[in-house]
Amino acid sequence: MALLNDLEWRYATKKYDPTKKVSQEHVDKIVEAARLAPTSSGMQQFRVFVISKQEIKDQLVPIANGQQIVADASHVLVFAAWDQYTEERIDSIFKLTTKERGLPSDKFVDYTNRLKAVYLKQSPEENFVHTAKQAYIGFGLSIAQAAELKVDATPMEGFNTEQLDELLQLKAKGLKSVLMLPLGYRDEEGDWLLPMKKVRNPKEEFVQEV
Amino acid sequence: MALLNDLEWRYATKKYDPTKKVSQEHVDKIVEAARLAPTSSGMQQFRVFVISKQEIKDQLVPIANGQQIVADASHVLVFAAWDQYTEERIDSIFKLTTKERGLPSDKFVDYTNRLKAVYLKQSPEENFVHTAKQAYIGFGLSIAQAAELKVDATPMEGFNTEQLDELLQLKAKGLKSVLMLPLGYRDEEGDWLLPMKKVRNPKEEFVQEV
Repeated sequence: MALLNDLEWRYATKKYDPTKKVSQEHVDKIVEAARLAPTSSGMQQFRVFVISKQEIKDQLVPIANGQQIVADASHVLVFAAWDQYTEERIDSIFKLTTKERGLPSDKFVDYTNRLKAVYLKQSPEENFVHTAKQAYIGFGLSIAQAAELKVDATPMEGFNTEQLDELLQLKAKGLKSVLMLPLGYRDEEGDWLLPMKKVRNPKEEFVQEV
Repeated sequence: MALLNDLEWRYATKKYDPTKKVSQEHVDKIVEAARLAPTSSGMQQFRVFVISKQEIKDQLVPIANGQQIVADASHVLVFAAWDQYTEERIDSIFKLTTKERGLPSDKFVDYTNRLKAVYLKQSPEENFVHTAKQAYIGFGLSIAQAAELKVDATPMEGFNTEQLDELLQLKAKGLKSVLMLPLGYRDEEGDWLLPMKKVRNPKEEFVQEV
């Protein structure tokens, strides 16, 4: 029941205590959960950026529509996905896998050719829809890992992605920002959401046996 | 380290032992992790279908491009997301939240009006990109919950979504299929992937400190 307890415990923290910092060890584990996340064909179509400098966090406030949360949090993780598929990107993880597993060098040629046939004929926009989705898997696992460590986190989608891409110079890296995850410790007094009951659709509405 | 150990343990199972069944208690917990998942504005834009009847699982094989895995697995979860936003769908969770938290009935009017202004002016296709992304968060958490229980799982994206929508009659429910997650127990002898090393991009490539 550990994970379910952690998921019951967590909530989208609305106010952080800016004096409390998350340890490097905990941040590393939260990122590691995303690194271990399953992704489509194992391609790991996303990367994680860790922001801890106050100066940069302050610059996130206008990008996050004035939400102070990103400045008060101890760290802000940014999940960014490939802006499109390329031959080189598709090949990259399979080259590593070939090496790490000691496989023949042509092991994944047919497989990667099939992936290329699918993704390279799509538009960059269609590609990015797919790569961005993979980031959501890792995002969920980072949130779960934070909760296990009793680190508060705030899942955030609503921000100016173009401005964030500019700030982190993501275009040059072939990435586009998808999600932000402030991490820290709740301000017990100041967070209006903390005392509120967690609400979800009831099981009978959420799940259906076929 | 519990979650990280679970994520190291899991792999995308390629062959199930069809004689081993996952208990109802375990299936319930795996679905519960998805139900507790955070979603954009807490709207829970997706639902989970649980398939255990052999007759239906057999019908999934052609839908999954002939992969026997969906028939041999003990259960197959289908994650399906809203095919589009509607006023009623946007209002639904906020009505429940108002009731569960004992709030004034107009508490979320401004907030839901802002959500409607954003989503109802988009096309159904744009809506579905957003609702489907939310399913990926729950999907990741179900995979983590399965691993905690030492239940094997296979994340699956590549299948004929239209045929699956038809089989589960999702259109009438305002849903479209997004992901499948076979659950069961690995065939230790027959799974070629089991002895292979898990490969991920190294930390220094995956994460960047800003």
